[in-house]
Amino acid sequence: MQDIVKFPKVARFEYTVEPFQEDCTGHLSWLELGNKLLAVAGHHADDRGYGMKQLLPEHRAWVISRMAIEVGELPKVGDSFVLETWIRKVYYTFTDRCFAISKPDGTPLGYAFTIWALIDTETRTPVNLMHIYDGKITDWVDAEKKCDVAPFSHIRVKTPEPEREIMACFSDIDINNHVNSIKYVQHVLDVFPKSMFEARRVRRVEMAYHGEAHYGESLLFYKQQNSPLEYDIDVRVPDGDGERKVCSCRVNFE
Amino acid sequence: MQDIVKFPKVARFEYTVEPFQEDCTGHLSWLELGNKLLAVAGHHADDRGYGMKQLLPEHRAWVISRMAIEVGELPKVGDSFVLETWIRKVYYTFTDRCFAISKPDGTPLGYAFTIWALIDTETRTPVNLMHIYDGKITDWVDAEKKCDVAPFSHIRVKTPEPEREIMACFSDIDINNHVNSIKYVQHVLDVFPKSMFEARRVRRVEMAYHGEAHYGESLLFYKQQNSPLEYDIDVRVPDGDGERKVCSCRVNFE
Repeated sequence: MQDIVKFPKVARFEYTVEPFQEDCTGHLSWLELGNKLLAVAGHHADDRGYGMKQLLPEHRAWVISRMAIEVGELPKVGDSFVLETWIRKVYYTFTDRCFAISKPDGTPLGYAFTIWALIDTETRTPVNLMHIYDGKITDWVDAEKKCDVAPFSHIRVKTPEPEREIMACFSDIDINNHVNSIKYVQHVLDVFPKSMFEARRVRRVEMAYHGEAHYGESLLFYKQQNSPLEYDIDVRVPDGDGERKVCSCRVNFE
Repeated sequence: MQDIVKFPKVARFEYTVEPFQEDCTGHLSWLELGNKLLAVAGHHADDRGYGMKQLLPEHRAWVISRMAIEVGELPKVGDSFVLETWIRKVYYTFTDRCFAISKPDGTPLGYAFTIWALIDTETRTPVNLMHIYDGKITDWVDAEKKCDVAPFSHIRVKTPEPEREIMACFSDIDINNHVNSIKYVQHVLDVFPKSMFEARRVRRVEMAYHGEAHYGESLLFYKQQNSPLEYDIDVRVPDGDGERKVCSCRVNFE
C-alpha cells in the first residue's frame, strides 16, 4: 500500500528551458510559460484531491475565467526556473489561484494571478465549491504568500475592424474540444510585428475568458492601442448576424 | 575540476508527457514530439563536441534537410517515453541521424530518420564534415542500431490552387530567424480537418526542406491526395512573379 503523502499548500516544480521552447528572442516562449502554468495548476489540484482527475468522473471541470501574468526577463535555453502555485482564496464557485515564477536560487522572475470556476460539465452551470468534499478545499488556502500582480483591468475594445482573422485549426483545439486558453495568448501576441518583441519586452499579459471557440470557427482579433506600450485585443467569433466575444486581452510592453 | 564524462554513441532521454503537451485526441502532439526530437539531437551533438554550442561561434550551423517520423500510438498525458538518438552515417557535408521512440520498458513506439548538412553561416555553403575536428565525428557513428523507417519518397504536388494560406508570424520564427522546421509539421497537419485525426492516426510524416521562409511571408499549402490515406503537401512562398518551394511533406494516416 502506498504511503499517504502530506502535500504542502504551495506546490513547487522545477523546469529547465529545453531547445525549441524559446521564441525568436531566445527566451522561454509565452506559449510554453502559459502551458506550464496550467500544467502545474493541474498537478497541484490533482495531488490535493480536487483536480480534474477526481472531478471529471463526477462531471465537474475547472474553467479558467481570468489570468494575468507579469514577468521580468524570462529564462533562456538551458536556464532552470521554478514555478510555485497555491490557492489564494475560495468563494462560492470561484477560486483565486496564484503562481510565482523564480530562479532556482529564489530570485523572483514574475507572478501570475488566475481565477477559476468549477462547473457542472452536463449543465454547464457553476458548482458551489463548499459542496465538494465538504469544502475541504479551504484547507489548502494560503492567503499570505506574495503574488505581486496588478488588479484586473476593464478592457473595452472599440476598434471597428479586425486586425487579423484566422480559422481555429486542429492544433488550436485541446482535450476539452475548444480552443486552448493559452493558444489565445499566442495568437494575440502574433497580432504584433516581430520587431516589437525585438525592441520591447512583454511585461504583462492579461486575459478575460468570456466563452469558447470551436474547431473551424473564425477568430477575429480587434486591436486597440491605449498608450505607447499598452494594447487591448478582443477575440471575437462571427455568430449569426453578429459576433460573440470569446476573450479580451491586454498586453503591456516595456 | 569537472570529471570528463565518456558519452556513449547513443544518447538516451526520458520524458513524461505533461498536461497541454497533448493534442485534442489526448496523445503527445506532433509539435511536441518534433521539438523534442530536435532538442535531443542538439543535446547529443553538444555533449559530443560538434553541436551548435561549439560550431556556431565558428560560423557553422546544422541545417535539417530531410525528416521522416513513423509512429504507432503516441503516449498520453502522464505516460513516460524515451527518445534515443545517434549518428548513422557521415558523408562529406551530410550526416544521417536516427531516433528511436520507446516506452521506458523498451517497447518501440516509433522511429525517425533525419538528414542534416553542416553549413558555413556566412557563405551559406556546405562544409565538409571531415574538415571539422579532423573528422572525429565518425567516432560516434553507430551503423547497426535499428531505425525502422521507410525510405524517403519523391513528392510531386501538382494541385493548381493552395488549400490554405497563412502569414508567418512571430510565433512561427525560431532563434535562427526563419520559420521553425517543426512548425511546418504543425501547419501541414492543420490542413486536415480535426475529424480526420479523430477517425485516423497519423502513421508517418515526411518532410523535405528546400529553403527558408521568413517573418511576414505568406505560406501557401498545396494539398494532393495520392490514395485514400496518403497526402502530399507543398509549402510555397510567393516570390517575385512566381513561388518558391520551402518544403514538401507526405502524411500517411492509418
